[in-house]
Amino acid sequence: MIVGVIGGGQLGRMLALAGIPLGLSFRFLDPAADAPAGEVGELLVGAYDDPALLDRLANGTAVVTYEFENVPVEAARRVGAVPDARALEVSQDRLVEKKLFRRLGIPTAPIDDEVTSFPALLKTRRLGYDGKGQRLVETRPGFDPGHVLEGLVPFDRELSLICVRGAGGETAFYPLVENVHAEGILRSSRVPAAGARQALAEEYATRLLDELGYVGVLALELFDVGGELVANELAPRVHNTGHWTIEGAETSQFENHVRAILGLPLGSTAARGEVVMLNLVGELPEAAALLAHRNVHLHLYGKEPRPGRKVGHVTLLDPSDGVVRSILSG
Amino acid sequence: MIVGVIGGGQLGRMLALAGIPLGLSFRFLDPAADAPAGEVGELLVGAYDDPALLDRLANGTAVVTYEFENVPVEAARRVGAVPDARALEVSQDRLVEKKLFRRLGIPTAPIDDEVTSFPALLKTRRLGYDGKGQRLVETRPGFDPGHVLEGLVPFDRELSLICVRGAGGETAFYPLVENVHAEGILRSSRVPAAGARQALAEEYATRLLDELGYVGVLALELFDVGGELVANELAPRVHNTGHWTIEGAETSQFENHVRAILGLPLGSTAARGEVVMLNLVGELPEAAALLAHRNVHLHLYGKEPRPGRKVGHVTLLDPSDGVVRSILSG
Repeated sequence: MIVGVIGGGQLGRMLALAGIPLGLSFRFLDPAADAPAGEVGELLVGAYDDPALLDRLANGTAVVTYEFENVPVEAARRVGAVPDARALEVSQDRLVEKKLFRRLGIPTAPIDDEVTSFPALLKTRRLGYDGKGQRLVETRPGFDPGHVLEGLVPFDRELSLICVRGAGGETAFYPLVENVHAEGILRSSRVPAAGARQALAEEYATRLLDELGYVGVLALELFDVGGELVANELAPRVHNTGHWTIEGAETSQFENHVRAILGLPLGSTAARGEVVMLNLVGELPEAAALLAHRNVHLHLYGKEPRPGRKVGHVTLLDPSDGVVRSILSG
Repeated sequence: MIVGVIGGGQLGRMLALAGIPLGLSFRFLDPAADAPAGEVGELLVGAYDDPALLDRLANGTAVVTYEFENVPVEAARRVGAVPDARALEVSQDRLVEKKLFRRLGIPTAPIDDEVTSFPALLKTRRLGYDGKGQRLVETRPGFDPGHVLEGLVPFDRELSLICVRGAGGETAFYPLVENVHAEGILRSSRVPAAGARQALAEEYATRLLDELGYVGVLALELFDVGGELVANELAPRVHNTGHWTIEGAETSQFENHVRAILGLPLGSTAARGEVVMLNLVGELPEAAALLAHRNVHLHLYGKEPRPGRKVGHVTLLDPSDGVVRSILSG
């Protein structure tokens, strides 16, 4: 049974590493001939919107999914992707996304005319990621239909909820993750997020998942503001803040995504203890030094290092603060 | 960094699934064009003793290893395999193997002239596996240099010790595994083996590992006879009775084999709880029914089912007896 994936980055690679043990084969479409997923499946090299390649991708597959949210909506439609194109449409437009959150009673930052204090964030509505496509502004800019102005949220911490919804509508939620970003790039995730409002986050996420008729893994990024949860954005895919689940949860986000899109029962989302995930950004680590620590799991994506690029991650189970500090200091 | 593997069966496949996250690529040599490892690396199709293919296998690799013990010794020598060819020579000849056990003070079954009671087992010295190449005899056969006669050991249970020795001579041992065979084929493994003599087994294994200057994972099969441990055979490779380590141990046997042959530090061999591994023999299971159980992990090898063939396995963490029975009867 073949699973097609639009995108062949590290997320696709980890989907395949989770799905191959279930007896599946994988086929990817990616513009890069050296895409990380090429190691674990057939790689079609070309544009995401190439109809002939999309047809080749889908040919003979049980299902086609995607591993990043900037997939052209038409491409997802053409291959009948799961999750379907609707979640893409929402997540590709920050304004549409914010409006959906609000319609479902999920708090968000103030936007556009609601913004009363500066500096505020001016974000492109489309194609932003890893902090790209946004900048701080000190005064209200002129109206621009391609941007959205967001008030800064005075958050105590950043959280994310990794959710999965099965083909029959059943849902499961991993414990809330506490995340730290720097320069717009995720640096670390920690589970469990002490004292976080799990039930409220699940309530918000359930509204989204059900509204979208979603099937697969979805990540909801939230700000914790004195116990209030304010939605930042959603990602209709497996997510960097869920990488800890590979060793740290009873079923990984990758396996649960595969299970969901194939209509299989979802696996337990319980954490196996305290877990810390550290991204490896810009340079490759000294593997021997990392692996000398007990319960450190190394994941490299087979990417050439360059500044700001995520080349891998490290997962630590029940770590001592000393080990985390030692790894962070390199 | 490329790892070459002689053999492309499920063991090779699981080695790659453990090694790819460490940033490695895999290349396999196997006579079968549909070998299970073809899913996770480059597959060279041809005979194990084809010098040109062996040279292609080794070309540009950091290390070459093997995933079954009937690799021609000359092939292992040609590519400078790790573990080296010596362990192969021992494990390929039941008589040489038994004599090594004895020289190291490790008890074995009585052999040849020592056998005084019948029925006894007449085994081919070479190329036996999964119960093949052996039969019960009721009387002493005529001398045959290609066979060895073994007295039956009145064992209480079958155990195995999965060991790993690093490039610097450091060793680590998984908890003793209790195994059940039927018709010569492993059916289940359970960890921990209650009340088993871990320290004695490790003592025996250490003698073997050090004597062989071994690097990598090695399995030592033992009979438990009223608390005495009697060595049955060794396998110089990752082993079916160690498959439970993928989810059930802090580091899997596959990752530890890769770490060892690359000279990296060994990972923790501690078990995560009680673990049961059930082989899937002869037919494919109903995946949805299996995955509906919590903490059941399915591994399919991508092999066409046929009678007596191992097509996958299931790992259960902290299972109730009811779940095990349900799956066994399923």
